[in-house]
Amino acid sequence: MSNHITVIGAGSWGTALSIVLADNGHEVMLYSHNHEQINEINNNRTNEKYLPGIEIPKSIQCTGDMGQALEGTEIVLLVVPTKAIREVCKQISTNTNVPLTIIHASKGIEPGSYKRISEMILEEIPEKLVKDVVVLSGPSHAEEVSLRQPTTITSASSNLQAAELVQSLFMNAYFRVYTNPDIVGVELGGAIKNIIALGAGVCHGLGYGDNAKAALITRGLTEITRLGCKMGANPLTFAGLTGVGDLIVTCTSVHSRNWRAGDLIGKGYAIDEVEKELGMVVEGIRTTEAAFHLAQSLGVEMPITKAIYEVLFQGKEVNRAVHELMDRGGKDEISIKDLGLS
Amino acid sequence: MSNHITVIGAGSWGTALSIVLADNGHEVMLYSHNHEQINEINNNRTNEKYLPGIEIPKSIQCTGDMGQALEGTEIVLLVVPTKAIREVCKQISTNTNVPLTIIHASKGIEPGSYKRISEMILEEIPEKLVKDVVVLSGPSHAEEVSLRQPTTITSASSNLQAAELVQSLFMNAYFRVYTNPDIVGVELGGAIKNIIALGAGVCHGLGYGDNAKAALITRGLTEITRLGCKMGANPLTFAGLTGVGDLIVTCTSVHSRNWRAGDLIGKGYAIDEVEKELGMVVEGIRTTEAAFHLAQSLGVEMPITKAIYEVLFQGKEVNRAVHELMDRGGKDEISIKDLGLS
Repeated sequence: MSNHITVIGAGSWGTALSIVLADNGHEVMLYSHNHEQINEINNNRTNEKYLPGIEIPKSIQCTGDMGQALEGTEIVLLVVPTKAIREVCKQISTNTNVPLTIIHASKGIEPGSYKRISEMILEEIPEKLVKDVVVLSGPSHAEEVSLRQPTTITSASSNLQAAELVQSLFMNAYFRVYTNPDIVGVELGGAIKNIIALGAGVCHGLGYGDNAKAALITRGLTEITRLGCKMGANPLTFAGLTGVGDLIVTCTSVHSRNWRAGDLIGKGYAIDEVEKELGMVVEGIRTTEAAFHLAQSLGVEMPITKAIYEVLFQGKEVNRAVHELMDRGGKDEISIKDLGLS
Repeated sequence: MSNHITVIGAGSWGTALSIVLADNGHEVMLYSHNHEQINEINNNRTNEKYLPGIEIPKSIQCTGDMGQALEGTEIVLLVVPTKAIREVCKQISTNTNVPLTIIHASKGIEPGSYKRISEMILEEIPEKLVKDVVVLSGPSHAEEVSLRQPTTITSASSNLQAAELVQSLFMNAYFRVYTNPDIVGVELGGAIKNIIALGAGVCHGLGYGDNAKAALITRGLTEITRLGCKMGANPLTFAGLTGVGDLIVTCTSVHSRNWRAGDLIGKGYAIDEVEKELGMVVEGIRTTEAAFHLAQSLGVEMPITKAIYEVLFQGKEVNRAVHELMDRGGKDEISIKDLGLS
């Protein structure tokens, strides 16, 4: 069955997901606010800045008019930065009058409010215009998807039917979609993994090897799980594609900006020097702050996040932070009580 | 408190663990059957073949006499290959008459019987000579431990006090030990991860990227967990150091022989060519066979293991196996029923 689907955000991930939909026979209306980019996609069939060398299929049309983008659509995919979510949702609300299935593929937590993306969406779009909210998240470089390389991803919604609708829209021979009812776990995993990527970079910068990297990732995952459970997530979600899977891609790829920031910190750079050196905002730094405060307010023990927070914001010496982490009292590996399973 | 501890097996891991014990003030009697190696350790204070450049502390003595090795000891650490476990246990039984705490740090499943190492130990050593069995396992290259780099590991026993004894023997500022009551999960994770390492190599050999690697590792972990739960393990163990942690070290290190074997298979080599090319036995190949048969007999769905088995033993073309894996019907990410949690 062919659907008309609106994709908002024409960066590399929005464009790659549009290509998956087009490959599956759907008509895609892609929204961008950049007029040069709109012309390039419609006329040259390329999006060189974000997906160099990839041909954009003819069934993808690009527009800068939100009204036109939403015309006749009941399915909207949001792929915009966290900080643009509320504004885009306001625009959607004023440009449609039918209930929408809203899929989002953004990763982040709102600074200050510590809200998840789906919470922001539900706050901004009136209830009568929201049929369902579905999160699409998992270990995926956009470039590899646009090259039709094997990729797996999770479609999460509290409404199984909505998750299955999204599964059927995207799934094909190179893009495999698994459903999961745990929207809280899927959103948290995708956002918070950047802290651990940062930590993995620090380990590398300090000259540590695979043992330390594995320790950091695994025990990092344990404390993310602990926080997630306190917020209502299923612990097993963090062992899945949006937990372990995403951590593997982010923490073992030197292309991750969070990893690179950590590497510089391990080598002795200060926070502001790091962002200057990389020439871009490092999301993991703000996520560390958010997770640290969430953990404090919920009474969850997150020793790795705390150590990274102290290094980033309180001037703690990196080697001392590592020493303190290693030197705590002995622990049990799985504290069932923390996970709310007993 | 200083203990007298016997370590059987002077390869890189046995020697590295002896060094940890010596650093913690214990007296170590290390058993080896190689007389040159015994002389080298006792006289030169090195073990160049296995830990080049590392000085062996004076509190480690090496012997080739099992009676002398076991004299006055109540704690024995076994670090020998799977195929040597039964023979070494027989020798222990005839050379002691006090109940022992037996720690093992070996990884594997017995071919044919599909037994875990601790099961083999309990079959070979009379009940009256076994106080407890404890498994020591986790993400750890021996070389990094001998360089005193930060490392974390799990001490698993059905008797928490025994797991805590082992934790207190080994734990120090660079070696952090977590206890876990789930001996089945810890032993299975360590053995079966080699299948996934092999698969990760295949992905690389086929020219696939990070998305495919993350998919393979994460979905591989899911099916290991499914098998483990059927055998009585705790699903959360597989999200820990001996699951995720060990997978990360094995699947992202090009030094793993299982990964290298998979890489060659992905490039089109046949099984016998692979072992000839690498000049050594590839444990993951035999573990694939064991896991495939275990899954069949227990009725557990393990699509990735099955695909690797068909490529290795039934001549299936690699690309066709990948296509079939991606082309199955849509699934839910976490099948709670399979994990015995509902």
